[in-house]
Amino acid sequence: MNGPLNGVRILDLTTMVSGPMATMMLADQGADVIKIESPRGDHMRHVGSMRKGMSASFLSCNRSKRSLALDIKRPEGLAAVRKLAATADVLVQNFRPGAIERMGLGEDVVRELRPDIVFVSISGFGETGPYSGQRVYDPVIQALCGLADVQTDHATGQPRMVRTIIPDKTTAVAAAQAITAALYARAQTGEGQHIRLAMLDTMVAYLWPEAISSLTWVGSESDPAEGQMGLDLVYRTADGYITAGAVSDSEWQGMCRALDREDLLEDERFATAGARAKNRPARRDIVGEEMERRPSGEILARLDREDVPCAPVLTRWQLLDDAQIAANGTIEIHEDDLLGKVRQPRPAARFDRTPASVQALAPYLGADNAAILAELGYSEAEIGRLSEDGVLAGDGPATDC
Amino acid sequence: MNGPLNGVRILDLTTMVSGPMATMMLADQGADVIKIESPRGDHMRHVGSMRKGMSASFLSCNRSKRSLALDIKRPEGLAAVRKLAATADVLVQNFRPGAIERMGLGEDVVRELRPDIVFVSISGFGETGPYSGQRVYDPVIQALCGLADVQTDHATGQPRMVRTIIPDKTTAVAAAQAITAALYARAQTGEGQHIRLAMLDTMVAYLWPEAISSLTWVGSESDPAEGQMGLDLVYRTADGYITAGAVSDSEWQGMCRALDREDLLEDERFATAGARAKNRPARRDIVGEEMERRPSGEILARLDREDVPCAPVLTRWQLLDDAQIAANGTIEIHEDDLLGKVRQPRPAARFDRTPASVQALAPYLGADNAAILAELGYSEAEIGRLSEDGVLAGDGPATDC
Repeated sequence: MNGPLNGVRILDLTTMVSGPMATMMLADQGADVIKIESPRGDHMRHVGSMRKGMSASFLSCNRSKRSLALDIKRPEGLAAVRKLAATADVLVQNFRPGAIERMGLGEDVVRELRPDIVFVSISGFGETGPYSGQRVYDPVIQALCGLADVQTDHATGQPRMVRTIIPDKTTAVAAAQAITAALYARAQTGEGQHIRLAMLDTMVAYLWPEAISSLTWVGSESDPAEGQMGLDLVYRTADGYITAGAVSDSEWQGMCRALDREDLLEDERFATAGARAKNRPARRDIVGEEMERRPSGEILARLDREDVPCAPVLTRWQLLDDAQIAANGTIEIHEDDLLGKVRQPRPAARFDRTPASVQALAPYLGADNAAILAELGYSEAEIGRLSEDGVLAGDGPATDC
Repeated sequence: MNGPLNGVRILDLTTMVSGPMATMMLADQGADVIKIESPRGDHMRHVGSMRKGMSASFLSCNRSKRSLALDIKRPEGLAAVRKLAATADVLVQNFRPGAIERMGLGEDVVRELRPDIVFVSISGFGETGPYSGQRVYDPVIQALCGLADVQTDHATGQPRMVRTIIPDKTTAVAAAQAITAALYARAQTGEGQHIRLAMLDTMVAYLWPEAISSLTWVGSESDPAEGQMGLDLVYRTADGYITAGAVSDSEWQGMCRALDREDLLEDERFATAGARAKNRPARRDIVGEEMERRPSGEILARLDREDVPCAPVLTRWQLLDDAQIAANGTIEIHEDDLLGKVRQPRPAARFDRTPASVQALAPYLGADNAAILAELGYSEAEIGRLSEDGVLAGDGPATDC
């Protein structure tokens, strides 16, 4: 292990995405993340495309971790997790409020075992309030936080969801940040603490700076729907789709030249930034028509020469061959003895002294049972007995898919 | 100041959103963030709704900071920033690659002044590669990273943008996490480092775990567009819009009862999770029709009684009065002598020992010039001279807007 969080041990009791993706970021940064799973395993193990019994979705949220799978409802299972908690710097859980206490791993219990632990509770809605007991699905948060409102269809007035799980993933990144901040504070003061993070709060804070800021001035609010990214900046070309933006005067002039429409430079409707904003629909129509007459490659080259920000709209397949993504090494291919060639994004932030990296692919269920228990002082015989008694669980590579 | 990052000093040379929102999170967590601005100030000061010359957008990306506004192109201005750099734990900049070196504040120069500094470079595309020199606009990243592809309109095949700046804001949270991790590493080793973070890389890593993970298996990829959140989960009711999701058997049964459609429990098309997934369009039509016949409040209460996850789709105005958001204290009202009542979201993560909070509203341009220079040892006379010579700049409250 290396990375900025080298030496940190995290007990990860989370499932699905918001928790696992948070601890994966920390694992890529060098933390020893031990994923505690029930004998059935994280639900994500069972969804999405599979290779040798490993789910791509699970792998993409749980790489660089170790797995300990055991029945926490059995006293021997709970005892093992408690022993492990005594060795951990951080414990993260995203059960519904109240569940972790009923499992016998509430903050009080754990802090007695490890007084300076950073205890982290991720929830959908918060600990109290009308929704707090509800199961959380990402779209429910999109509905409540204003994101579906941001996406309202202008023509029909119907709110719409973003078709990827923005609240889950944003909460993951925010949780990783908060955990790291608490570790920093502990390094200064020696004290751990409890971090509580709700997806709903995360999303309101995330949307606010741009999408909700017009509600800042109490008593003189303006409608957040006005002035937001309204017209879609995607243009259809003769052979695909591109995006291009001409905000400044010089960018607009460059766009006119790139499209062989120098005549528009004289057009009063587009003479200033203010006029262009006012006449956006007309401008979009004219520019769109010109775009449709040329192939993407030609327009992009012309816009580029004129210093107008532009890019092709890439499908996700096309990401794999994009020259910028290749130059950045954004997507890596890992060669695994069992799984073969596996694509993963590298950790986005590059640390020049303590590089973060994909430390390992994701573990099969219970892959590290024996190693972790041995580290805790369990003998081989004891581990064997726990396994026979069905306290420990695990699976391995499947051959059929 | 309090918060987990108490005692950390951050020199913030960033503008717009991705950098400023990152350092704002750290400022809310107790870091002393000094925003260095040109005499004209961050562009965000000039956009969006205003009160007394303060922009709501600027305030919402720059609260809890101090402002030092000076002409860095003048030797005396540069000298002051270098003196300040010698006192800083972190320097963050998001200029285009190469610019910070031309300004005389490249890593080599700064590290000589402060050997253990965490130096942070946020870019749109990375330091090299075909797009690296381009000005970055959020939609360009949405186009390149696959987000516009995720949003493709099924009917027309046209990619679409999300109408809020997801790449800017996600990069902000990821940058805040990376900076905090480097501070943690420095607390362990005494060494600073250089963090480089590209918006494009951030977004590929962010989208991957769910929206791109089907490209994980090299040689047996499946189309990422299949199996993603397809049908929009927003239902129109008699008087508004709600979301509701029935994934498990018990949730589906609950939904049938809530809609007085027990007959559907016998319907083979919906008998299992697999069948329901296959017959999603038909299911959506039937459920949608029932929803339209009832007001939101009635349906939500019925779904809630049946333990079916559901919520109203809130407009951003409605966030202000929502009972869950009120219970969480997600949105705070700050009373300011000058600006009056000001709404801001509280920092999402709640730390029970070192609480993060809105430490102050955002500063006017150069509001802290004198205080910061005095801390560096400048005399009152020297500060006066720099001000007279036009090296320092500043403004204050406007009376007209």
